[in-house]
Amino acid sequence: MGYEEFTIEGRNAVMEAFRAGKPIDKLYVLDGCQDGPVMSIKREAKKKGTIMKFVTKERLDQMSETGKHQGVIAVAAAYTYVEVEDILKAAKDKGEAPFLFLLDGIEDPHNLGAIIRTANLCGAHGVIIPKNRAVGLTAAVARTSAGALNYTPVARVTNLSRAIEDLKKEGIWFVCADMDGTVMYDLDLKGPIGLVIGNEGEGVGRLVKESCDLAASIPMHGDIDSLNASVAAGVLAYEIVRQRMRG
Amino acid sequence: MGYEEFTIEGRNAVMEAFRAGKPIDKLYVLDGCQDGPVMSIKREAKKKGTIMKFVTKERLDQMSETGKHQGVIAVAAAYTYVEVEDILKAAKDKGEAPFLFLLDGIEDPHNLGAIIRTANLCGAHGVIIPKNRAVGLTAAVARTSAGALNYTPVARVTNLSRAIEDLKKEGIWFVCADMDGTVMYDLDLKGPIGLVIGNEGEGVGRLVKESCDLAASIPMHGDIDSLNASVAAGVLAYEIVRQRMRG
Repeated sequence: MGYEEFTIEGRNAVMEAFRAGKPIDKLYVLDGCQDGPVMSIKREAKKKGTIMKFVTKERLDQMSETGKHQGVIAVAAAYTYVEVEDILKAAKDKGEAPFLFLLDGIEDPHNLGAIIRTANLCGAHGVIIPKNRAVGLTAAVARTSAGALNYTPVARVTNLSRAIEDLKKEGIWFVCADMDGTVMYDLDLKGPIGLVIGNEGEGVGRLVKESCDLAASIPMHGDIDSLNASVAAGVLAYEIVRQRMRG
Repeated sequence: MGYEEFTIEGRNAVMEAFRAGKPIDKLYVLDGCQDGPVMSIKREAKKKGTIMKFVTKERLDQMSETGKHQGVIAVAAAYTYVEVEDILKAAKDKGEAPFLFLLDGIEDPHNLGAIIRTANLCGAHGVIIPKNRAVGLTAAVARTSAGALNYTPVARVTNLSRAIEDLKKEGIWFVCADMDGTVMYDLDLKGPIGLVIGNEGEGVGRLVKESCDLAASIPMHGDIDSLNASVAAGVLAYEIVRQRMRG
């Protein structure tokens, strides 16, 4: 990541960062705020010995990158990217078949945050994003991830299709979201798997698609073209979860 | 709805509005823009006899409610709410068992838009929202619905649990999203069904939950509390789709 300091905004995100033991350098709190969730955050900060500054709403608004601080902004050490190998190791340490998310150029920070949140909850071991033409781990992403960024590692690679080719040698199968693919219920999505989700406008790129073993479609019974990218990721990810749970 | 005029912003949303035959009163286009999608919109507007105004980026920025006009803003007749009976009639006309979404106080317009988009694509006949403590059909909702608002009817009711009690008399079963509920794969979600999704912070309210026949949970294999509301709606809705398709 390109910067050293990082702000975490919003009550859920700040509380989750404390709970996850994320190193918080400083906590800005709305002066005089006695709301339950803010009181809990203050208690947590006191317990961890975090420096607290009580400031006006104007000051928080000024500092806020997302405009949705809800009275608390924490300044933390930057979120750091991991290496792809670290994600594989995490799966191995848990004794589980690897389950990865690969995002081909997601540009909306809310979608990226929501997808990392989904990756965490469906038990994926990590998320891989490309270095270019994609949003990185910004404050808005951290906030919409609702704390998932503290647990789910994110790796950045220069070339997504090369990363896929490398990971295939580790025995991982890749399935990409593709409207022209096989209906997801008819595919075998068990075992070591990488789920590839395309960007909001154009879907998965041609080269990346060609690197994948399978193409999965979500059944569409409506009038418009496509689901929101984070919703599509969630629907496909949970089909994988279902198959893993129910065989 | 409280107003007569309504703006639709962004290339997809405007194009979808034209395609769906939505009455567009006026189209504001970025002067000199020759991008393919904008040219297609201009052709469509000419075909429909819509008044076009060519304006500067500053003017569009000023008019824009979402900040994401992408060079086109259409002024249309207001989106109108339907009655719950109209949604049931739509299902009957299609010869299908009713499939409804009920949203208990969704406050984020992006979530509401994404959920209406999902409702459209999973073949639901309509969406029911409460009059109070919830976002209505704003420009941001229309935009994130990616055109789904042109096809999927939305009804507003004063009291969601009373609406549920009334609809039960029509033979519809209600399932609510609930972290303490039965894992969704173990429930029978076929037949006439209403899917009840709670708001971002607190989930489904107590009274509404008590009105429901079933409580469904999404399996959680991670560290944080919950999925994004629109992702959760998508995952549950597609479990219903799967059961309807595959028996």
